Parts: sequence; structure tokens; C-alpha cells
Amino acid sequence: MFNSFGNIFRLTSFGESHGPGVGGVIDGFPAGIKIDMDFVQQELNRRRPGQSLLTTSRKEPDTVEFLSGIFEGKSTGCPIGFVVWNKNQHSNDYENIKNLFRPSHADYTYMQKYGIRDYRGGGRSSARETISRVVAGALAKLALKQLGISVTAYTSQVGPVKLDKDYKSYNLDLIETNDVRCPDPEKAKEMAELIWKIKGEGDTIGGVVSCVIKGCPIGLGQPVFGKLHAALGNAMLSINAVKGFSYGQGFDSMELKGSEQNDVFYNNNGRVETKSNYSGGIQGGISNGQDIYFRVAFKPVATILMEQHTVNINGTDTTMKAKGRHDACVLPRAVPIVEAMAAMTILDYYLIDRTTQL
Amino acid sequence: MFNSFGNIFRLTSFGESHGPGVGGVIDGFPAGIKIDMDFVQQELNRRRPGQSLLTTSRKEPDTVEFLSGIFEGKSTGCPIGFVVWNKNQHSNDYENIKNLFRPSHADYTYMQKYGIRDYRGGGRSSARETISRVVAGALAKLALKQLGISVTAYTSQVGPVKLDKDYKSYNLDLIETNDVRCPDPEKAKEMAELIWKIKGEGDTIGGVVSCVIKGCPIGLGQPVFGKLHAALGNAMLSINAVKGFSYGQGFDSMELKGSEQNDVFYNNNGRVETKSNYSGGIQGGISNGQDIYFRVAFKPVATILMEQHTVNINGTDTTMKAKGRHDACVLPRAVPIVEAMAAMTILDYYLIDRTTQL
Amino acid sequence: MFNSFGNIFRLTSFGESHGPGVGGVIDGFPAGIKIDMDFVQQELNRRRPGQSLLTTSRKEPDTVEFLSGIFEGKSTGCPIGFVVWNKNQHSNDYENIKNLFRPSHADYTYMQKYGIRDYRGGGRSSARETISRVVAGALAKLALKQLGISVTAYTSQVGPVKLDKDYKSYNLDLIETNDVRCPDPEKAKEMAELIWKIKGEGDTIGGVVSCVIKGCPIGLGQPVFGKLHAALGNAMLSINAVKGFSYGQGFDSMELKGSEQNDVFYNNNGRVETKSNYSGGIQGGISNGQDIYFRVAFKPVATILMEQHTVNINGTDTTMKAKGRHDACVLPRAVPIVEAMAAMTILDYYLIDRTTQL
Amino acid sequence: MFNSFGNIFRLTSFGESHGPGVGGVIDGFPAGIKIDMDFVQQELNRRRPGQSLLTTSRKEPDTVEFLSGIFEGKSTGCPIGFVVWNKNQHSNDYENIKNLFRPSHADYTYMQKYGIRDYRGGGRSSARETISRVVAGALAKLALKQLGISVTAYTSQVGPVKLDKDYKSYNLDLIETNDVRCPDPEKAKEMAELIWKIKGEGDTIGGVVSCVIKGCPIGLGQPVFGKLHAALGNAMLSINAVKGFSYGQGFDSMELKGSEQNDVFYNNNGRVETKSNYSGGIQGGISNGQDIYFRVAFKPVATILMEQHTVNINGTDTTMKAKGRHDACVLPRAVPIVEAMAAMTILDYYLIDRTTQL
Repeated sequence: MFNSFGNIFRLTSFGESHGPGVGGVIDGFPAGIKIDMDFVQQELNRRRPGQSLLTTSRKEPDTVEFLSGIFEGKSTGCPIGFVVWNKNQHSNDYENIKNLFRPSHADYTYMQKYGIRDYRGGGRSSARETISRVVAGALAKLALKQLGISVTAYTSQVGPVKLDKDYKSYNLDLIETNDVRCPDPEKAKEMAELIWKIKGEGDTIGGVVSCVIKGCPIGLGQPVFGKLHAALGNAMLSINAVKGFSYGQGFDSMELKGSEQNDVFYNNNGRVETKSNYSGGIQGGISNGQDIYFRVAFKPVATILMEQHTVNINGTDTTMKAKGRHDACVLPRAVPIVEAMAAMTILDYYLIDRTTQL
Repeated sequence: MFNSFGNIFRLTSFGESHGPGVGGVIDGFPAGIKIDMDFVQQELNRRRPGQSLLTTSRKEPDTVEFLSGIFEGKSTGCPIGFVVWNKNQHSNDYENIKNLFRPSHADYTYMQKYGIRDYRGGGRSSARETISRVVAGALAKLALKQLGISVTAYTSQVGPVKLDKDYKSYNLDLIETNDVRCPDPEKAKEMAELIWKIKGEGDTIGGVVSCVIKGCPIGLGQPVFGKLHAALGNAMLSINAVKGFSYGQGFDSMELKGSEQNDVFYNNNGRVETKSNYSGGIQGGISNGQDIYFRVAFKPVATILMEQHTVNINGTDTTMKAKGRHDACVLPRAVPIVEAMAAMTILDYYLIDRTTQL
Repeated sequence: MFNSFGNIFRLTSFGESHGPGVGGVIDGFPAGIKIDMDFVQQELNRRRPGQSLLTTSRKEPDTVEFLSGIFEGKSTGCPIGFVVWNKNQHSNDYENIKNLFRPSHADYTYMQKYGIRDYRGGGRSSARETISRVVAGALAKLALKQLGISVTAYTSQVGPVKLDKDYKSYNLDLIETNDVRCPDPEKAKEMAELIWKIKGEGDTIGGVVSCVIKGCPIGLGQPVFGKLHAALGNAMLSINAVKGFSYGQGFDSMELKGSEQNDVFYNNNGRVETKSNYSGGIQGGISNGQDIYFRVAFKPVATILMEQHTVNINGTDTTMKAKGRHDACVLPRAVPIVEAMAAMTILDYYLIDRTTQL
Repeated sequence: MFNSFGNIFRLTSFGESHGPGVGGVIDGFPAGIKIDMDFVQQELNRRRPGQSLLTTSRKEPDTVEFLSGIFEGKSTGCPIGFVVWNKNQHSNDYENIKNLFRPSHADYTYMQKYGIRDYRGGGRSSARETISRVVAGALAKLALKQLGISVTAYTSQVGPVKLDKDYKSYNLDLIETNDVRCPDPEKAKEMAELIWKIKGEGDTIGGVVSCVIKGCPIGLGQPVFGKLHAALGNAMLSINAVKGFSYGQGFDSMELKGSEQNDVFYNNNGRVETKSNYSGGIQGGISNGQDIYFRVAFKPVATILMEQHTVNINGTDTTMKAKGRHDACVLPRAVPIVEAMAAMTILDYYLIDRTTQL
């Protein structure tokens, strides 16, 4: 059950880095939605490595092949199977790590858990698995678009370089104008320079992706164990390299007292709104109609081009050094993945909310 | 389905602040576990308000009544129903908020979602709901004890007063020696003084609860959508007032480069271990045998004894002021709840892991 | 997860025959439904043993106590906890079966599975567990009533005495006019006489309950693994002593050829209907707007007042003989349970269907 | 969620008759199982139409392509994606039914539910969907083989021709020696002749598939809502054209009194067994170590080569006549599907049972 995400709208994913392909089954997608194939492909392109020099240069012209659930350009309500074929299956590239446990990778834990592991390119633990999420997320976005809901993520921090202001201060239309996907062009330049420097050292660096959801109707979320922010947090923490999630005021919540942080209601020309939005658009686990926003912390990618100590599969101490290309900073590529996971979550909760009253 | 928590081990909870009682059904608890009733009651006592002057003085002598699933002192494998009766059902206390939406509370979102709300004491959104979690968590702890797994939480920050060092620097046996549940007696005193001051102002303050899990076997967690830390994050974000979750290096992950943050493996007298533990005991979503640790951010409680602007149920602007007792800082009471949610998560994943190989 | 029934509308049940009580949590019940307490009690009364001399004379004045989720007479959308207290907890009555495995009861399988068993009155395997179903089913019926959907079951066979015609030939209003709950008064008399005779012998007898659902909208059911009839079948097979389920033409389907059994469509004054209804109102797993009907086979109750061979808990051959009252035929009491399970299933699928299109 | 089957071991299926392919994702398959590809293919061959003149002559050389989850010939514990490509996508063959609702098919209910339907060859409602089940069932069988559990189905009735005795009277090794998959060669001949005759008339006929599970350990099944026979019933009722399910004595349960039908325990050389097995190997929803057996009723296939009345998509009365090949009796092909569903159910419950005690 643990390769499925969502309740009513549900992605079940499969695939390893160097197997035949990655893909999945999208169940519970509403019938009658026009599937814009160009949009889906464009989302896949945003995720793809090698989009710029900033990220890994491994070329993956990922194209999705839909196998079911779409008829004459529209969703039929039946499950949508899909696959993206792996072009790059040179498993011999990975012979050198076959007998090693790479530090801070999942090699060791997989081996202990399963007694067997597909060591080629990280196998199932590879970031290539996120392709399935981006495909399903693209479909979710198409449905949300019909509902007037938008999901927008951006890089808000790389190492020590960070945006100081909240999302309202930035023009989110600028996000896709630079390689790091940051709405502040000056900061984007600083971030890019830092990533170049780190890349040159063969090292890696982490950061933060921020995300804003606009147009979410009031009432999504379940009060106790299905709080909307818990679902979003669960979604984000399922992405490789994520170490933290916060929404609204998040880890800064202790800096302000209750009297400073409460979002007072007022009547804004006939609509109940809050004057501030420290709550991040969610109160009691349920959306209140204000913008939803949250932050996702990514650690530096574990693969570095430097010699490291480790043990081999016999438990003997040794050293290793990865070769070739590497991804100095995963943040830019993570932006569309964060959006995909958020879009799936919101669509799922939108559908669930349909069942609240007769 | 959203009042249930867990997969194999599963709590389904019910109850509102001022209804007859709160309780739940614990399904999937392993058969044959001796139920130490004193321990369960002691855990409930830790959660109870009015334990010290620091927290709300509302008296709730919560006693659990088990209705099924236990026979001759042992779990039978059948579902364990339980109820804790509400002693304090003076709903007239709440007539004054019947027609108001309290700022940063769930009054407004419940009303919009359901078209009806039990306004008495917050109804289902009351922290009283966590009683069910503490009962189920206590049972989970009893099972984990048999497996040599311990779960320990503590207050690590209140407003600006915080512990600077990680959990290894503190003697966790000191946690229960002070009212704020902080392992550093000096800091505990500072925190307590701050809470007193805030309480005197009729205001509230947030903070951070940290948690450490020791003795967790290698292999718990599922690689993609059931990552162990995502399950823990989901669990924590389901607690009222929680705004953020991070594990291992968390939101500080961007301060160190990959080369600094990777946890290299080494052979420690025949056992594979990591030299550092920035990963927080989880790699690729699966426990690696090191200590698991994480942090949970709490915002200040929304109920303050100060006048606030708001709207009434007709959407008209007005003001309100809560009366009587209030909880200036929820952190000390949150400690056992964090432990309960973590214990349930670990037990659930322990049972799931049983199905990995034939 | 196996003490829960349903997907969106979900009952989680607990309780043993001689523990403090039986009850459950009803989750996902739509908000705003008026709860007619008299109706709920009346349904419980229909299930209760001792309603007539035909069934067991054990007196159980079952009264439900709701613990949450209802406010000012209406459902709030929050989980509805409830309990029915066990009045009759004389566990000493069961000392004699403590060390025996009763034939065709669950004593042996429970013991082997769990390593422990509550032997008092069958523990969790007692028919008393169905109280929870009847309570939840009563609420489901209240919601279905608003939607114009009715669920009606009746005894159609006891031993060799059976109704020869299908449900359309009978006046279903007569069902509650006799103790066996059979719409044919003549047959009812025959059935009653047979049950009396069997009861006098200390023996038991099985039969068939038939059920009709009218007013079900077109479109309920999921095409592959959530077929509406599979959900109904699963529901019925969860009732104690049920050995078979069939819908529409059922096990008589092989008597007619395809050309005889196909339900041809025609335009009935602007409404698409079928001329016959061998399909039982479900095609491709989805309701087609015609009446849904199905049959449920019950074996004779295992408890008989006759000496039987068996083994004790040490595996030694021995004999046993149950004492006192016994239920010679469970059919009349099973009628409201069949209705309850069907009502829950239909409501659940009605809610699910809400999510099919945007 | 309704294209998934199973709890821990879970198949999620996709695919329509005339789309690119059918397939699925198998999640929760235990790691380290050797995948015998020849066996999987052989199972697919058993399901394939055109194996003999008795069934439809449409040629479908179905070959499965595994996309993930298998490494060096063994399962890795990661999800196993697979696809079987559709060779026969001539959708123009189906232009004639595009605007019609075929009697007793799912055309009408799909259209009403989804507002759109893939009319080509029945789309998702085609029996081709069962390919995914047979693939997943084959893997389940491989795991069960390691556990010493076998699952064997056979045709026990075609129209009025039926086996009079129970499974113990037949040599199950003879099942695959004839086209109808019946262990009684004489009856098989009669059945075949009947099918030929019906086929010549352009008509269809139903029947019964029986199934026996041997070697099932004691203790599988959950007492209340996950009874082992309810899970089997749910599995069987998910197969196209199935109208009924019974286990053990089934719909004949009312012919014998309790005293005749109880399965008394006795000590069989140190092992507790039952003298009779009317219970069908399951008591209280839990396997008792005796053989499990059940029956599945199939109606005649709806597609007949005779003129029938119906309505078109505008609701206008009309007639239609299917052309070309047709499947006069689905029973022989249903045998491997019944086995597949049973094997998946047993493996799932075997894994679940692992979590019963610590």
C-alpha cells in the first residue's frame, strides 16, 4: 500500500532508475477532463535534469506514454496507466557501487530491509521515481485549473542565500525566468553563483522551496487525522532529500505571542476574511479561503565527487569516490515536484469534501 | 476515514470537548500484551491540564474506561474500545461564543465546511480530543517496551528561550523533574518564568518539542510514500497548534554542504554504524539503527484573555474577550502527545515491516 | 483495519459478548442529518433476541448511548461514538466451555490465531457484535430516506420451507406482521412451526434472507474492484453464519441461456429501463436504476442443546452439551442486520459516486 | 481506490480492451521471491481466448512485460509494474455499437456514471481487464508454493450439466486434460457438447466454477469485517459475470440441521481436526487448517449473435445484432481467473496474519 499516494485521487507508482521504465496508475481522476498533453510534457520538462548547467547534465528526454483511461482526449474516469521509458540503462556504470553502501544514501537501509537491492543508480530510491509524481501532478493541475485553483512553488533559499520577504513581496511570474526558479532576479543570480562554486568543488548544497496555493475553496481538510496541512506535510516529506516542512508562520511561530499572531476576522465587503494570515490559510486543519503557503527544507544531495569513508556489503571499512556528473543543488528541479505533490493533495481533498453533506 | 490513524495498528477516535466523552477504538494491537493500567493512567495524567500552575487550571481527572479487547489483563487481538468521560459539560459557559468566530480557532472553518458546529469548548477541535491519542499511545509504548524501543520527548524551546545543544548533551531523565518538561533545569526555570509572565498578560506563547526514539530496529519505513519520517511528520502535524516538523538536521540542512553533512558508515566492532547522525536515524525513508530525532513547532494557543476584533456568525464586525482560565503555553502538555503519536507510528511500522519478506 | 467497514462512510466496531459493552465509531456520516432516536431504538429492538418465543429468550434491553458527533439533534460531520452496555456479564455461566472448543464455533481458530481468547459467550465472535452494525445501519437508513432509497429484507426460506416466487409477488408491508419476518403469512406459519419443532429437539436450522433495494440512483458502484454487488456480498458475508451470497439470478443463472437472461433496454415513457431484471439492478458493477435484490444463505446456528464430540484446549477428545436457552433459527433476527449492512453499503457508494465528475 | 485489490499485497490495475495495453502495479509482494517467468506466461496462456474451439477464437498472444520490481530474477520488495500490450486495436470494428447500449452489458451504466465511455470492445468492462489479475495471481501462486499452499479451480457445472459430488471425489490432476477444465472426463465431454450446441445457436450459457485451497495454515482471516470467506467472496464477485459465491455447505446449508452440519473436532494423531468439513475450512472467518472450498456462479455471457431489442444513446428503441466470434461459455477461461483472485487473497491474508502477535 506504500507506493500509493492519495485517498480518492490516488497515484500508485512504480519504477527504478535503471529498469525498463518508471510510471504508475492514476485512479480516481474525475471523468470528462480534457487532457492537455503539451502541458503534461512541459511539466515533465521542468523536472528533467540537464535543463541548465546548474543541474546534472545527464540527458533524459522523458516522454510519457499513456496506456489507458483517456479516450478521445478526455479522461474517462477509469484508471490512467502510464510509463516513461528509461533510455539510460547502462548498468555497468554502477558496477563500482554494487558492493558499497554510499553514505547518506538508501543503499544500506534497503539491503537490511529487503535482503536484496537494485544497486543501479539507486534503484527505487533514485529521484527518477518523481517522474510519476510530475505526470500525476500535471493531471491534477488540469483539474484544479477548472476550479480556479493555482499551485506555485519557487526556490526561496540555497545554502545561506535566502529571500527575506514573504511570497506577497515577489512577482511569481518571474520564477521561470531564471535557472534556479527564484522570483527575485538578484537573489537568483547569487544562488546560481553559489551553486556553480559548489559544483566546481564536487560538493552539494541544500535549500528551501516555498509554495503558494491560491483560490483554494473554504472547507478542504479534515479536522483530526486528515488535517490539510498534515496531508501537505506528508506529501512533501515523501520527496527525496526533504528534511522539514512548515506552513504559515512555521518554525517562527514562537517569535510572536498569541496576541500578535492571531488572525482576526473582519468583514471585507461582505466576505469574511482575516486581516493577517499567519495561519497559512488553514485553521483547525481546514482551509479558510486565504492563501495557503508552506516551506520545504531540502538537505544537500548525498552524491558528491569527493572521496568518502564507508563500508562495503561485508561491513569492511573502505573509501569510495563517485565519478562523472552530479547535481550540486536539487532545488530548481524540486520546484515542479513540490507543485505536483501539492496539486494532487488539493485535488484529493477537494473530492473528499464533496462527501461532507448530503 | 479521517478520524483513524495508522495502518495495521490503528486508532479511530471520537469525541468533543463538551459531549458525553472522548474515546476511540484501537484496532490491530498485537494479542497477548500485558496491559499495565497504572502506566496508561500515568500517561493520561501527564497530558492533563492543571498539573501545575503553568498550564490551565481546569480540573479534569481523566480516567479511561476500557470497553473491550482486554481479557484477564492482556490484549486479545480484538479491537480495544475505550472512553474517558467528560466531567465538565457546562455548555452554558460557552453561550457567549456561540455566535462568534474566535480568531485563529476552527469555529469559522467548521461552520463553513459542515453547516453546523458544536461550539461548546471548541467541540471536536478542542485539545481534549488528544486524550484518545494518549491512551492509544500508552498501549503502543507498552508493546514497544517489549521490543526495547523507547520514545522520549521534551520541551526544547519556549518563545525565545531555547536549548542550544542537541539531545545527546542532556540528561533526559531530568525531563519530568520540572513543570515545563525540559531536560536543562536552568533553561526550564527561564521558560517557566517566561510562561508566568505571558500568563499574567493574558497572552500565550509557542515553542518547540523535540523527540528522540532509541532502539528502533533497522528497516522500518517504506521507500516512497510511506517514508518513516513522513509518517512521523504526518503524525505530528495532526496535533493541534503544530506548524512545522523537521527531522535530523531539518531546516538547518542548508547550513552544511553535502561533504559536511553526509553520515559516513564505519564498522563499529562488527556493527555497521554512522559516524555522525545528521540523517536523524532515517535514510531513504527507512530507519538505519541510529537514534531517530525530530522537532515539532507549536504556535501560541489562540485563546487569549485580551480583547480581539472578529466577526459574528452573520459576518458582522464585532469584538470579543475570552474569560477565565487559559493555557499560556501548551508545550509541557504537548510532550506526552508527541510521544504518543510517535509511539503509535513506530509500532505500526514495526508491524508492517513484518510483511516485507516471506 | 479489520474492524472497520466502509470507505467514506465507515463503521469501526468493538465489543465482546460479556465485556462492558459493544459499540463503535461511525465516521464520514454526512453533516446536518436529523437523528431520529426512536427509529434507531426501534431498529435495535428488531435485532434483539427474545422478541418472540421463536428466538432465544435471553433478555437484552439494548439501549444505545451516543457519545459524540450529534449536536442539537443533528449530525455534525464529526465521528459518532456510541456504546450499548452489556447487562448480562455473568461470566461464570461460561466456565464450562472455558477449556473446550465448541464444534463449528470460532473458539479453536481464535485460540490458534491469537494465543488467547475471551471464552465468555463467544467473546468477539458473538452475534452481539452485530448491535454496532444495526446502530450504524439505522443512521445510514436515515440518510437514505432523505434520498428516497429504501432497503427491505425478509426471511425467504427456513430449512425446506421456502418462498417460490420473487419479491415482486409479495406485499413487503406484511414482513413485520409475523415473528419470522416473512411476507407470505401462510409460509410464515409453516416456518414458525418448523422452528418450534427444531427448537424442541434442541437443534437448529438455517435459511435464506432476501433483500430488495428500491430507489437506488443510477451510477453507484465502481467498475472493477469495487463493484456494487461485490461490496454488498462482502457486507453480507461478514455476518455470522452466512455461507453464501447471490444477486439477481444468482445460482440459477445457468438455467437460462444468454438470450433468455439478457435484460433488454427499452424506452419507458422517456426513461431508459430494462424489460426484465435478471441483472438484479446492477450491470458491470454499477446500479442501473432498477430494483437491486439479492439473497443471503445462513447455516444453522452452531449452538445446539445436544451432546457433541469435541476436543478440549489440550487437544484431548471429550464430549460437551450446551445448556439453557438457544436460538433455533437466526433468520428473523438476521433480517435487520442484512438491512443494516446493505444500507451502509449503499450510503457509502452514494458518497463515493459524488467524486466521479468535477 | 477502486482499481486496487488487496491490503498488504495489492494489485492496482489499469487498461481497456482496445487501448494501448492492460497492466498494473503489484505492491507489497515479498522481497526475495524467485520469479518463474515461464510459469507466469503459462498462467496467461490458460486465460487466453482461442485456446480451444470452445471459447472465442480471437487470437491474443498475450505476453507480459515487467517494468520494475524484479532484479536478477528475484522480487526486490519494490512495486512490480507490468503491461500486456493490446495487439488488436481495430476500433473501427466497434463503430456499430458506438451509439448503442448493449443489453446486460455495462455500456449504459458507464455512460450514466461517467458521462463518457470508451465503447471499443467494452472498454474497461472488457474481460481483457482480467489479464492483470492473472499476472498478479501468478506471482501470488509462486509465493504460496514456497509456503506449501495450493489453489485449484475447475468447472463444476455448465448449464444443467453438473458434477454431483464434492471435490474429494475427483482427481484434480485431470482438470487440465480437457477443454472445459472439468476433473470428470465424462462430464467434461457432456459439457463440451452442450457448449458446442449453444455456440452453434449464437447463444451463451453459464455455470459454476469450484475452487479448493489446500495447505492453508490455521489462523488466516480477521474475525469481523475481514472474514477470510468474505474476502474470497469479494474477490470472486469482482470477476465479470459472477452472480453468486458460496463456501462450504453454501446455499445447501438449510438442508441439514445444526446437529447434522456441525463439524466436530477430534484428535487425529496429535493434530486437532474436524470429522466433517461443512464449514469449508473457515470458522468464525478464520481458517481452521482443513481444506477451503467454495463455488462461484457465472451467468451466460451477454454478447450473443442474435438480434436483440435495445435503445441507442438517445434513448430511442432499436434492435442490434452482434457479429463475428463470440464466447459461448466463459467458464473454462474463468478457471485461472478464480485461482488468481483466490491466490492473491490468501497471500494477502497470510501477510496480514504476521502482525497478529508481537
